[in-house]
Amino acid sequence: MSSVSHAQLTPLRFLERSAEVYPEKVAIVHGDRRMTYRDFAGEVTRLARALQASGIEPGDRVAYLCPNIPELLIAHFAVPLAGAVLVAINSRLAGQEVRYICDHSGAKLLVVDSELRSTVIPVEDQLATIQEIITISDPVSGPDLSDAPGPRYPDLLERGSDEPLDWTVPDELATISINYTSGTTGKPKGVMYSHRGAYLNSLGELLHSEHGADTVYLWTLPMFHCNGWCTAWGVTAIGGRHVCLRAVRGDLMWQLIVQEEVTHLNGAPPVLSALVSADEAHPLERRLVITTAGAPPNPNTIARCDGINARVVHVYGLTETYGPYSVCQWQTGWEDLEVKERAALLSRQGVGMIQAERLRVVDDEMNDVPADGTTMGEIVMRGNNVMKGYFDDQGATDQAFSDGWFHSGDLGVMQPDRYVQLLDRAKDVVVSGGENISTVEIEQAILTHEAVLDAAVVGVPDEKWGERPKAFVVLKPGEAASEEAIIDHVKATIARYKAPKAVAFLDELPKTSTGKVPKFELREREWAGHTSRIKG
Amino acid sequence: MSSVSHAQLTPLRFLERSAEVYPEKVAIVHGDRRMTYRDFAGEVTRLARALQASGIEPGDRVAYLCPNIPELLIAHFAVPLAGAVLVAINSRLAGQEVRYICDHSGAKLLVVDSELRSTVIPVEDQLATIQEIITISDPVSGPDLSDAPGPRYPDLLERGSDEPLDWTVPDELATISINYTSGTTGKPKGVMYSHRGAYLNSLGELLHSEHGADTVYLWTLPMFHCNGWCTAWGVTAIGGRHVCLRAVRGDLMWQLIVQEEVTHLNGAPPVLSALVSADEAHPLERRLVITTAGAPPNPNTIARCDGINARVVHVYGLTETYGPYSVCQWQTGWEDLEVKERAALLSRQGVGMIQAERLRVVDDEMNDVPADGTTMGEIVMRGNNVMKGYFDDQGATDQAFSDGWFHSGDLGVMQPDRYVQLLDRAKDVVVSGGENISTVEIEQAILTHEAVLDAAVVGVPDEKWGERPKAFVVLKPGEAASEEAIIDHVKATIARYKAPKAVAFLDELPKTSTGKVPKFELREREWAGHTSRIKG
Repeated sequence: MSSVSHAQLTPLRFLERSAEVYPEKVAIVHGDRRMTYRDFAGEVTRLARALQASGIEPGDRVAYLCPNIPELLIAHFAVPLAGAVLVAINSRLAGQEVRYICDHSGAKLLVVDSELRSTVIPVEDQLATIQEIITISDPVSGPDLSDAPGPRYPDLLERGSDEPLDWTVPDELATISINYTSGTTGKPKGVMYSHRGAYLNSLGELLHSEHGADTVYLWTLPMFHCNGWCTAWGVTAIGGRHVCLRAVRGDLMWQLIVQEEVTHLNGAPPVLSALVSADEAHPLERRLVITTAGAPPNPNTIARCDGINARVVHVYGLTETYGPYSVCQWQTGWEDLEVKERAALLSRQGVGMIQAERLRVVDDEMNDVPADGTTMGEIVMRGNNVMKGYFDDQGATDQAFSDGWFHSGDLGVMQPDRYVQLLDRAKDVVVSGGENISTVEIEQAILTHEAVLDAAVVGVPDEKWGERPKAFVVLKPGEAASEEAIIDHVKATIARYKAPKAVAFLDELPKTSTGKVPKFELREREWAGHTSRIKG
Repeated sequence: MSSVSHAQLTPLRFLERSAEVYPEKVAIVHGDRRMTYRDFAGEVTRLARALQASGIEPGDRVAYLCPNIPELLIAHFAVPLAGAVLVAINSRLAGQEVRYICDHSGAKLLVVDSELRSTVIPVEDQLATIQEIITISDPVSGPDLSDAPGPRYPDLLERGSDEPLDWTVPDELATISINYTSGTTGKPKGVMYSHRGAYLNSLGELLHSEHGADTVYLWTLPMFHCNGWCTAWGVTAIGGRHVCLRAVRGDLMWQLIVQEEVTHLNGAPPVLSALVSADEAHPLERRLVITTAGAPPNPNTIARCDGINARVVHVYGLTETYGPYSVCQWQTGWEDLEVKERAALLSRQGVGMIQAERLRVVDDEMNDVPADGTTMGEIVMRGNNVMKGYFDDQGATDQAFSDGWFHSGDLGVMQPDRYVQLLDRAKDVVVSGGENISTVEIEQAILTHEAVLDAAVVGVPDEKWGERPKAFVVLKPGEAASEEAIIDHVKATIARYKAPKAVAFLDELPKTSTGKVPKFELREREWAGHTSRIKG
């Protein structure tokens, strides 16, 4: 791969190009701060030089613990430009979790937003490999209240220089970043992305979410989450504008959407909910493209997105697949369907994206299940949009890639039109009287009840059936519904045997930082005292 | 490159995907014929099997001599699916030129459109490696008038089967096609494209020409020309619709644009001219994107494209760069400029595309020339959008890639905004009194004269200066202008020493099949009897 006729693929080329083509164009907006592409590339070079001057060597890991601020965006280019590997840590983790990731990745340097410094302070003395902690004071979050010792971000930058670095890389298969899984079960695992994979996924997302040079991208998706599904690189490639956002709040989102004329944003369903439920919600003149994943968008949300002139692109993937691997590809004619019917079609996980391979659903022997919409199997993936492996964990890597395909642990069916529909996480499925029951299917049935705002279903012990589904339901403000009414509604909607045996009403569901319900928490309470089944 | 986490890049994946995602969507339109993506992939499989059954083995070359018909589009996938290499031959070549390409490429099979069979008949007995000639009878061209012997296309297909073949390839750097240079000088050279390069160029073109799943692409660019700048693969990737066209004629183009609701087409300036000059020209409801190369679009054409609601994307490249390598990237604000000013900006060759490397202009020692818009240098390129090399011609390959970059033989300047402007082919530049004079610059000056339709400038012998520019000018119908008026106009427009010493008026300029003026022809006449300079 060293001939002149094939350059190594790397997202670094994207910034090199945009800085040359659009030097004066605003690349990053954050509060009152506006950085052009020239400034962006300039600070990337300076920081890469500073990292090298701070002892960072090729292959070293550099950890960041930050909200969606320009410094983390800059790190997506500066860390690999220095030859190093970016570890962007989930900003909602507790100190011991941050410590685990720093230690496991062997990161030498940790860069922390001042608001998050308090997370790190209790564990600072325990960090095994971190040689230095740098604190960022972001003017948008107010004055720097952190009195923690150690250098500040400008001190780090001062060690650098403006001496250009080479934007090419010697090996496109080298690791560009490590993203730790959310780890609702067991220890987080470090998912390794390559320059090649990041490059190709970026281009695929540009095509599927219809980005262009006039893209204005609002950072509602955490940058630490799969490197923002690679949009940190992708939006830069197309010469779009990054609009940073420290916290996802309806009023803030709308203020920026209007002020910056936002064209695109990504986010899990809670982001969509916050967006369409905000007091400021109104029809936009210019269409907004919302790319969503994590859970299928429900009919109500899709109808409200229609109402604000937003188009929903539903994608599916995991941390192990650079974020999105498949897309529920829009078909001509869907625009004429009733919103409920359209939502049902759009709720599916779909087909492999342009840059990905096929999305398969297989049985235990790796045979494709029939495309009948009912035979459940495991979703498996492979190719350029699947991770290199787990960092320093060959055992887990080998297990994940058994039979040459990455095993998602997600269960689904293949619909007759070859669109995959996700039914459940393997570990969340309810096995009742020998039948597999999808908790997602029950949740979706419950969500069609007009009084219901949110729902989660898990399997609970049952003497006769082994287990039975139980629903945890949040009602809309001011609405009422009985347990019996919910159960009857499910029976009227899907097969009766799938109906929950019980319904508990909650004020809100527990959620992880990426908007998922940690079902193991719900299960744990119900299974306390039982030993017949180990889950979660 | 064999790990599960990185599949080999190949355009074959594009058709595999679109056939799965859009089985019922019309992929190809040709006259009354409409093929869905399922049909398309089905015929590709059948043909690939037929080629294998006909003795085609991995790495073998298969030659096609056809206009823009579905069979040639199908060959772009079927030939590589059979593991072989596509050689699409310029349909306007003479018999001996076709023979040379067949022999040089060592093609085993030649597939010929019945209308072009007469080109081949005189040389059929001389073909060194062709084992079989297959004739296609295209119903759109009328009944098959060819009485040539040998099998017809349906006979070939009958040797195949519908048994699926694997759409993956063992090596992304393998050759997918060989495109012979037009060879205005010397023998044509066989430019080798790789699966990887074709894949990446396809994605880049989709982004730069703003293709989407609703693309309807009119085949005005010859498919044999750089595989239609890779759009044979790219439009298939995005699930767009191919509208075939045997001959570029204004009325035919407009009929299809209206009937099929065409959104995109590519072509050299003569295509644009034919389009905007047609009687049927009228403003389109849906914007048309016209991607053009070969010569800068002139202000008049751009204004007329505005008038029909067409946006012009100006790209630049050579056969050696898969077609487009650079794009005159649109900048915010250009839409507000006067058409003349906008045309001047758009006439430049611009910057490397997303999937390409930088476009450089270098001096003899490979140093970048200053970005001053006046220092001339050679345009050099490298990376994934540059050919693997010339087939069976290591000497020419080594020469083209001296210093690790592909040498285009084109001369240009770097403008202060880092956009490259092409001045001339190295062999076309006029050296007068030691000064390099760009013939393109003079031509553009002449074209701004209101009476002028077309112009070409070459160097002619001059006792005092070594050579001086001479202009060949075509006037607009009904317009008149004297030699002196043209010379004065040039002197008033650019530096006086660049003015032609003579002007000859012609009814039309000679043009190659790709719309270029073969300047060596014009020069030859003028230099007859002189031996001081060898050019062309």
